[in-house]
Amino acid sequence: MLPIRDCVQQTPCYVPGEQPQTTDYIKLNTNENPYAPPDEIFNNLEEELKKVRLYPDPVSTKLRKAAGEVFGFSHEQVLAGNGSDDILNIALRTFVNPGENVAFLDPTYSLYETIAKVHGANIQTIATNTNFELDGPLICPEAKLIFVASPNPPLGKHLNRQYLKETCEQAAGIVLIDEAYVDFSDENHWEFIQQYDNVIVSRTMSKSYSLAGMRVGLGVSSRSIIEQMNKVRDSYNLDRIAQTLATNCFQFQDYFQSIWQKVRNTRNRLTESLINLDFLVCDSDANFVLASPQWIEASQLYTKLKERKVLVRYFKHPRISNYVRITVGTDAEIDRLLEVIEQLKNEG
Amino acid sequence: MLPIRDCVQQTPCYVPGEQPQTTDYIKLNTNENPYAPPDEIFNNLEEELKKVRLYPDPVSTKLRKAAGEVFGFSHEQVLAGNGSDDILNIALRTFVNPGENVAFLDPTYSLYETIAKVHGANIQTIATNTNFELDGPLICPEAKLIFVASPNPPLGKHLNRQYLKETCEQAAGIVLIDEAYVDFSDENHWEFIQQYDNVIVSRTMSKSYSLAGMRVGLGVSSRSIIEQMNKVRDSYNLDRIAQTLATNCFQFQDYFQSIWQKVRNTRNRLTESLINLDFLVCDSDANFVLASPQWIEASQLYTKLKERKVLVRYFKHPRISNYVRITVGTDAEIDRLLEVIEQLKNEG
Repeated sequence: MLPIRDCVQQTPCYVPGEQPQTTDYIKLNTNENPYAPPDEIFNNLEEELKKVRLYPDPVSTKLRKAAGEVFGFSHEQVLAGNGSDDILNIALRTFVNPGENVAFLDPTYSLYETIAKVHGANIQTIATNTNFELDGPLICPEAKLIFVASPNPPLGKHLNRQYLKETCEQAAGIVLIDEAYVDFSDENHWEFIQQYDNVIVSRTMSKSYSLAGMRVGLGVSSRSIIEQMNKVRDSYNLDRIAQTLATNCFQFQDYFQSIWQKVRNTRNRLTESLINLDFLVCDSDANFVLASPQWIEASQLYTKLKERKVLVRYFKHPRISNYVRITVGTDAEIDRLLEVIEQLKNEG
Repeated sequence: MLPIRDCVQQTPCYVPGEQPQTTDYIKLNTNENPYAPPDEIFNNLEEELKKVRLYPDPVSTKLRKAAGEVFGFSHEQVLAGNGSDDILNIALRTFVNPGENVAFLDPTYSLYETIAKVHGANIQTIATNTNFELDGPLICPEAKLIFVASPNPPLGKHLNRQYLKETCEQAAGIVLIDEAYVDFSDENHWEFIQQYDNVIVSRTMSKSYSLAGMRVGLGVSSRSIIEQMNKVRDSYNLDRIAQTLATNCFQFQDYFQSIWQKVRNTRNRLTESLINLDFLVCDSDANFVLASPQWIEASQLYTKLKERKVLVRYFKHPRISNYVRITVGTDAEIDRLLEVIEQLKNEG
């Protein structure tokens, strides 16, 4: 009998969205940025590749400084992670003993549940209302850690700011605000870090900074929280090239802001077009929309789109079983999606 | 009061070897390979960089297949990690509940202790004899996980094979054999995976494959063990470039074997030269040697070498307080090291 921990044995393997290894799909399923980062981020790459035999900076100093400057915090308040999933996992392992409570909304980013289960934490879920929104603050005095995403997937809307403030005020533990999608919106929660001593904000460079392939996430909080999380981090958790490209990306704020605006424009057009094609569509602050077709089962739509080489995301979660989640692609990609949907509707 | 876990609060931060950000040092302190990987591993990099906005393969299929082919196992028996530190941490989190026992030698790779403490495991250390070797198998029936490195740092010698076999036979839990340095020796422990159902072998590409900058490690075991460890892994734990460069490295076995031989030749010369310079030197199966100067305190030697821009490693550990660990560099680097040591000795 191998000594597999019960919490591991009993947790099914997390299944991320499909990553087809061919390029013939219009890929609107895992919320990547449709626009490449600027070519200039590769300018000093050769120099780094020459040093590939040498360990990287274990504490990602340049990256944390670059991020801190853009975010408005000291680099001592910034932790670099191997994707923001690393930040979430580090938070769990810093603040929650197995058997203690972790709280999050239902529905939300499904990874929270997987990592909490694997860690052996007790899970407390708080259901959103029928509009997938909050009816009040999250009250969970037992929770050592509350994961809240704002914008919150799969809807993609920011949570009510006042309720979120009350959540932080009343929490007995840490509140981690996952801002994976925040750059596609008008708001953020940096001020929460100043106002509350129990708040961590996590960011990913996968979506807004077009670096999903490089696995770079950031956690921002007080110095004392970051100091503890730093002990849990693998000592060399970001490789040379990830550190270099991510640091470089922060030098191109104007470029990225322009593509965030493009994504928002396309998102608005997509939303309107889907409504015209008889979908229920939720307003989104993110780079995706959640939409429910009124003339076909969502699962069937997913399959038919996939047959026609358009990948969107379908979740088996009961509350969204008649929705698909569509990443905002380029205008051409969205035109093609809409064209295929229209064909399917006419065939239907 | 923030809910920091006791096990985290009470663990000091792991301090890896210095990684100077300038290039004016002869760097013999963190066991990097002195030879760059072949240029050809960068051939298809541009193609990958074009896809940097897209998520990588979450399960590192090509890398695991390439590693499996070289190692002689199915890719289903291979887990890819963000450095072998990731593999060690995943093993801990798969097999050990906080409060349960983890065992390892003293002295050995100091990270085992840090990650076990951070995890909240009980630590059981087994002292090596005065020659830093085993007097018998590791008997620790309470341990859910035994970390054994072979070659074992800081000595760098393989552990007695028969004792290691008995350790695996008698273990109630998992035995993880850390083969970080194995490619610089004549032996490995692949057959242990076939013989025992509780053995994991971990490898790193940081040393023998000249990829310390890219953070790639591999764990090899039975399908059922890998399946459980895979649940604990971050779902996208290796970025595109790390996967690509590591996969490519496995295509150049002849090149790497030739540089491993070069390192071994230089190691032999270094050992002999140090003996002639009045050091006690341990025989090594790795790309470093542990050596004790008989005419100066080791800590002082470390400092004086550093002043002269030669970095070696000094550990405060009581059992090796009069030793320095010297990475085998290029012949020119070792010539310079020996020259500086000779000067110091003549001055002394």
